[in-house]
Amino acid sequence: MCVLVVGSAALDSVKTPFGEVTDALGGSAFFFAAAASFFTEVRIVGVVGEDFPMEKIEFLKTKNVDFKGLEVAPGKTFRWSGVYHENMNARDTLSTDLNVFETFSPKLPDEYKQTPYVFLANIHPELQLDVLAQIENPRLVALDTMNLWINISLAPLKEVLKKIDVVILNDEEARMLTGEHNLIKAAKAVTRLGPKTVIVKKGEHGAFYISGDDFFSLPAYPIEGVFDPTGAGDTFAAGTIGYLARENDISPAAMRKALVYGTVTASFTVEKFSVDRMKDLTFEEIQSRYDYMIKMTQF
Amino acid sequence: MCVLVVGSAALDSVKTPFGEVTDALGGSAFFFAAAASFFTEVRIVGVVGEDFPMEKIEFLKTKNVDFKGLEVAPGKTFRWSGVYHENMNARDTLSTDLNVFETFSPKLPDEYKQTPYVFLANIHPELQLDVLAQIENPRLVALDTMNLWINISLAPLKEVLKKIDVVILNDEEARMLTGEHNLIKAAKAVTRLGPKTVIVKKGEHGAFYISGDDFFSLPAYPIEGVFDPTGAGDTFAAGTIGYLARENDISPAAMRKALVYGTVTASFTVEKFSVDRMKDLTFEEIQSRYDYMIKMTQF
Repeated sequence: MCVLVVGSAALDSVKTPFGEVTDALGGSAFFFAAAASFFTEVRIVGVVGEDFPMEKIEFLKTKNVDFKGLEVAPGKTFRWSGVYHENMNARDTLSTDLNVFETFSPKLPDEYKQTPYVFLANIHPELQLDVLAQIENPRLVALDTMNLWINISLAPLKEVLKKIDVVILNDEEARMLTGEHNLIKAAKAVTRLGPKTVIVKKGEHGAFYISGDDFFSLPAYPIEGVFDPTGAGDTFAAGTIGYLARENDISPAAMRKALVYGTVTASFTVEKFSVDRMKDLTFEEIQSRYDYMIKMTQF
Repeated sequence: MCVLVVGSAALDSVKTPFGEVTDALGGSAFFFAAAASFFTEVRIVGVVGEDFPMEKIEFLKTKNVDFKGLEVAPGKTFRWSGVYHENMNARDTLSTDLNVFETFSPKLPDEYKQTPYVFLANIHPELQLDVLAQIENPRLVALDTMNLWINISLAPLKEVLKKIDVVILNDEEARMLTGEHNLIKAAKAVTRLGPKTVIVKKGEHGAFYISGDDFFSLPAYPIEGVFDPTGAGDTFAAGTIGYLARENDISPAAMRKALVYGTVTASFTVEKFSVDRMKDLTFEEIQSRYDYMIKMTQF
C-alpha cells in the first residue's frame, strides 16, 4: 500500500566534526520519502520556493516517490543550518529561515485523499490537523512532533494526538509531554492522550514501543561512527511506516518487525550527509542489517 | 560449579526519594553473593569488623553461601552512606569510612584456591592481582572496577586486565578507560587491553557484550519505579557469572543467556533497599522475567 508524508522540504547547511555541506536536500518530508521509497510508493506533500533546485530530487522520481503534492510557492525554500559537536548528541541551530514554509497550508491532491498509510512529520500541530481533515478513511496515521510544539502549541498537539494511531517520539519529548522521567511510565502516559501505539526512540540506545499490553524493546544497530545524525528520526519513521504499508499489516507482529526496519534504515542515514546514503543504498543492504539485528539480539 | 567473589563487605546508609535505611547489608561481595546464590554455590572473601551484626547474613547461610573466607578483623566494618536524587541516575556519597577495609589483604582458604569461576568485584586492582595470584587454574575470571581506580590506579588496573577473561563496566567507565566516546569503539578498545569479553552496562538502556566477532545487545527489563539502585551492578554480575558457573559453560550462546539472567536479577535488586528483595525472591520469579525478556525482544 501507498504511504503519504506531510512535512518540511528544506535545504540544510550542516557542519559536523567530519565535514560540512551547504544547501543539501533536507527536511522531514524529503528524508522520509527517500527512505520509505525502499519499501513502497510514497506521496509527498510539502512546499518549496521558486529557487529550489529540482535536480536534487530527480533520483527520487525514479524511486517510487510521487511529487504531485509538492507545491512550488513564490519566494525562497525553507533553509536550516546547524552544527553538531564532537559527541554528536548535541547540536546548535545556527539559523532557521522558514521562507515559504511560514505560510504553508497543506492541500492534498484529490487522488491523495484516500492514501491508506499517513505520516504526519514534525510540523505545526494545526497543520497536522488540517491534513487529517482532508484524509478519508486511513488505515493508519502516525505522527512525529518536537519539543517546540510541546512548549508553544500543546493544545492543538493534544487535539491531534486524540485522532492518530501511532506517535513516534524521542525520549526527551516523551518526558516533556508527560512530566514523567521514567520512560516506561512516560510512554504509558502518552497512550492515555490518545494514540494506541507509542514508539520511543532513544538514539544510540535503541527504541521501544507500547501498544495496549504489547511491549517490544530493541537495541540500536551498532554504529561505530556517526557522520551526520540529521534525518535519523525521519528515516526511522520511514522504515517503520514504510514496512507496515508494504505489508499492509498493523498487527503487533508486524509492528515489531517494522521497528527493526526503522532502526536499520536510520542506521544508514547517519553514515553520510543529507539523503546521500539513500542514493546508492539497496534493499539488500537494509535486509542484511535486519538479519544482523536478529543475530545480535538472539539468546 | 562454584563461584568465588572477592569484594567489599559493608554497612550502607542510603536515602532515596522513597525512604531511608541505616547500616543495611551492603558492599559488592554481599550483593553478589546474595544474588549469585540463586544460581550456584558461592564462596565469599572479604572483611568485616568486630561490630558486624552476623544475624544480617544468617539468611545467606541457608542459601548456598559459604563464609569461610569472610574475615572478622579488629575494628569497625566498612560503612558507606549516600543519597539518591529524584531521577535516580545521580547519587551523592555522604561518607565513606573504610575502617577494616582499609588494610584488607584477601587471603583465600586453601579449599577456595581451585574455585573454577571467580568474580573480582570492585576493589583496588592491587588486591585483585593478589587474589589472582592465589587462584589455581580458574575456568573463568570476571572483573568489575570503577572510575576511582581508572583515575588513581590505572597501571595495576591495566596489569590485572591482561590476566582476566571478562570485564564488566558501565558506559562511563568504558569511555574513561579508553577515551572513546562511542561505546562500540570503547568496548573494542577494552578488548585490546586484554579481556576476551567486554560487557558494557547501560542502566535503564540495557547492556551489550563484545567477544571476538560475537556481539550481543539487549534492552533492560522494563522497570517503572526504581526504589534504590544500590547493588544493581553487582547483582547484574551475579546473575551473569552465576548462570555461567551453574551451567559450567562459557560459550557465546551461554554468555548471551547469562547477560539476560544478569539483567533480570538486577531488576529485582532495585525494587527494595539493600539485599532485601533477595530474601523473599524465588528462582521462579527470576525465570518468569527471563521468559518475559524473550517475549519483549522477539520479532
